[in-house]
Amino acid sequence: MPDSATVYPQPLDVETIVEVLESDDEARIVDVCKRAHPGDVEEALERLDDGEREAILHMLPSDLFMSDLINYLDAGDVEKKLQTLPETEQAEVLDAMDDDELVDLLQEVSDEQRPQLIELLPEKKQAVSEELLQFEEETAGGRMTTAMGKIHESCTVAEALAILEKMKEETEVLSRIFVVGDNDQLIGKIRLRDLAFGEKTALVGNLADDDQMSIQVGADQEEAANMIARYDLVALPVVDAEGRLLGVITHDDAMEIFEEEATEDMEMISGIGGERGELSYLQTSVFGHVKRRFGWVLVLAFLALASGVVMHMYENVLKAYYVLVIYLPMVVAAGGNTGGQAATMIIRAMSLGELGPGEFTRVVFKEMRVGMILGALLGVCVAVQIQFLLPQSVLGEGDSLIRIAAVVGISLLAQVTTSTLIGAALPLIARAAKLDPAVVASPAITTLVDVSGSIIYFALASALMASG
Amino acid sequence: MPDSATVYPQPLDVETIVEVLESDDEARIVDVCKRAHPGDVEEALERLDDGEREAILHMLPSDLFMSDLINYLDAGDVEKKLQTLPETEQAEVLDAMDDDELVDLLQEVSDEQRPQLIELLPEKKQAVSEELLQFEEETAGGRMTTAMGKIHESCTVAEALAILEKMKEETEVLSRIFVVGDNDQLIGKIRLRDLAFGEKTALVGNLADDDQMSIQVGADQEEAANMIARYDLVALPVVDAEGRLLGVITHDDAMEIFEEEATEDMEMISGIGGERGELSYLQTSVFGHVKRRFGWVLVLAFLALASGVVMHMYENVLKAYYVLVIYLPMVVAAGGNTGGQAATMIIRAMSLGELGPGEFTRVVFKEMRVGMILGALLGVCVAVQIQFLLPQSVLGEGDSLIRIAAVVGISLLAQVTTSTLIGAALPLIARAAKLDPAVVASPAITTLVDVSGSIIYFALASALMASG
Repeated sequence: MPDSATVYPQPLDVETIVEVLESDDEARIVDVCKRAHPGDVEEALERLDDGEREAILHMLPSDLFMSDLINYLDAGDVEKKLQTLPETEQAEVLDAMDDDELVDLLQEVSDEQRPQLIELLPEKKQAVSEELLQFEEETAGGRMTTAMGKIHESCTVAEALAILEKMKEETEVLSRIFVVGDNDQLIGKIRLRDLAFGEKTALVGNLADDDQMSIQVGADQEEAANMIARYDLVALPVVDAEGRLLGVITHDDAMEIFEEEATEDMEMISGIGGERGELSYLQTSVFGHVKRRFGWVLVLAFLALASGVVMHMYENVLKAYYVLVIYLPMVVAAGGNTGGQAATMIIRAMSLGELGPGEFTRVVFKEMRVGMILGALLGVCVAVQIQFLLPQSVLGEGDSLIRIAAVVGISLLAQVTTSTLIGAALPLIARAAKLDPAVVASPAITTLVDVSGSIIYFALASALMASG
Repeated sequence: MPDSATVYPQPLDVETIVEVLESDDEARIVDVCKRAHPGDVEEALERLDDGEREAILHMLPSDLFMSDLINYLDAGDVEKKLQTLPETEQAEVLDAMDDDELVDLLQEVSDEQRPQLIELLPEKKQAVSEELLQFEEETAGGRMTTAMGKIHESCTVAEALAILEKMKEETEVLSRIFVVGDNDQLIGKIRLRDLAFGEKTALVGNLADDDQMSIQVGADQEEAANMIARYDLVALPVVDAEGRLLGVITHDDAMEIFEEEATEDMEMISGIGGERGELSYLQTSVFGHVKRRFGWVLVLAFLALASGVVMHMYENVLKAYYVLVIYLPMVVAAGGNTGGQAATMIIRAMSLGELGPGEFTRVVFKEMRVGMILGALLGVCVAVQIQFLLPQSVLGEGDSLIRIAAVVGISLLAQVTTSTLIGAALPLIARAAKLDPAVVASPAITTLVDVSGSIIYFALASALMASG
């Protein structure tokens, strides 16, 4: 979070910046990157493709990278710019980075480059970076910053203010200041306003509240984001197993984590695999897109073969009552649609924390009722359509409207009920098995219920037709 | 955002709270609701069904509703509790609410009840509520709070601190204080630390930066959330057309807006309609779930009829080369899957602001290449499978393996390419037509490309088989 004194009056429109960046006019490009908010510059850069972006990064003067902009850029872009700079300027750029952004960059670069970059840092930042690099990227520790207000409980208000004044440009969130005991034990927090408006000789330890809400350094980043959202926090302290304060995760990190997780869920729901990484849609190459999508496409294609084999097995039924082919795609698709709906409902409810692990039977029973009602309603609608609107010309010899209506209607009821159940149960089972529930979502469920739909339809048809 | 002095040491587990709430032990229930963080109590309440929740709300003593808890509860729950209270207690509960939560509640209640509740408020809150009620629920104005630090530029630092000290428990975010001119014109902002560490006789107007970043009161709430995320803000000022400061939207509102919008997108992608409202999954009745899902299910079922009609039209081809039925579901499903992937990619990229309105041709050209490569790869894989692994026994007289492989392979190429194009283009077209891009997502695209898939497959088959 930028806390420097730089100021951005009403921001420039991102469209305008993109236009300038695409203009080839170096003076205007440099000017707009200086004047625009770095968040908008980053967003405009994301809309360019690889070649254009590299040209712009190359063109911008290196002092621009020693400003706030550096904390908004993708780690990959920072790396590219660094490679073009002499060592002294590299050091200045690295020094301008917030420690959480710096660690992101160090995680991104190659194993050979990492020690070289760390070497360039001032001594204090070297130690911090090496400490932060220990933690996994997706944990609270991997996401936290060590720049925070931290005061020992034995300080007076006046001493605390003096300490904070010295670090006032460094710390990310001075509105939450943490009070620690010996050994950096987290004791509670105090607000700047309590210090500013407090008796100057009072002890900080006496003024602090004893709110020790915190997260373990090894916990999942998503858990940290959920706590920040649920408790409306500005910053969440990160502690080790002994309760020592190591850093904080701020509300803007939480927002980023939420965006990443929502994107991941949506992609999984649509059968897009692998890490999205930090690249935007346009930054990802055609081959990169193919790589992320082909896996599921291939697996699902061969799963769909099963439906074909079922249809092939029932050759006799289908050839004898060819009119049945008209309603086959409908029965199959109704299963896919309702199964997908149920899966999305459950997956989203789980990520919003609305469903605890003990809720399995309750959810399954609820979805069974929803599925039966949906299936019955749909079955009746379609049976009525068949009875009154199906043209006689499509009927073969021996076909009876009422029997076709019965086959289709009952199949819809059976297919929608089972599909809704499968769609609801699979994500719950996946979670119980410690898998990401979104993995088993829509495309896999759809393909699975396509097969069950064909079987239901033909089995029912051959039974009913044979009885006629 | 709660800024009162209430303190919550390490929070109780939500599971534990749910267990206690379900225990029927009144003393324990009241105790746990007092001790637990209100954010967790709200989450535990969301996991109960309607009857249980009402019983608990009834059981809890009314003074608990005059604490922080009231600002975490759903407006619907607050309303239910209010109905059971005498007027004096109603007034106290309403007075304990933050003004943005209060306005949510007033928006929720019936038109008759609204003036009665407003009547109960202290005079100052009456005026604020009536002002806030003018704005649409989903706009910046409908979401903002008027509780903020606001200082006239002509104040000295000492005067500003005195003003802020008086309002220190009221204002949501004292770490961002806004400086206004005559007529409440937004001039810039100043941080509490700048006041706390500044010269006491200096003028606030001289210390403030001239950051006038703000949002118009009528703008969409999503735009406000995007600005807060992009610029890493703690609070975004809301102004009217004359630039007068009306209120702020805080970072925790932005997080809520993001969650709501992500849920809405995911639901639309899966063909779930209507407003989710504030009800959780379990709080929504079986009938409520059916209502939100049946619309799309019915429409899609009748759309799927088109595929059936196509299959029926090609009766002769299918009966002559019945082996083709094995690969039909695969060709159809491959289109649905790739079209859905493309749609999700584009919809998500648009909501993350990665795609500007000028990007249409670039995206469509990119997806065309992605689709062709995916289709070609898949076509080759499946053609090889047919050539070498399809058992002779399923072949009819006159079927030739190589010709079947050609039909299926080329169909897959054509189907995947067109489906990917359709999946990418429809959300872009929807946005250009000012529709929500997610409306045209997966289920509709899937059904559409199912039809095109059947046509491609049979047209190609009849052409190729006839030529043989």
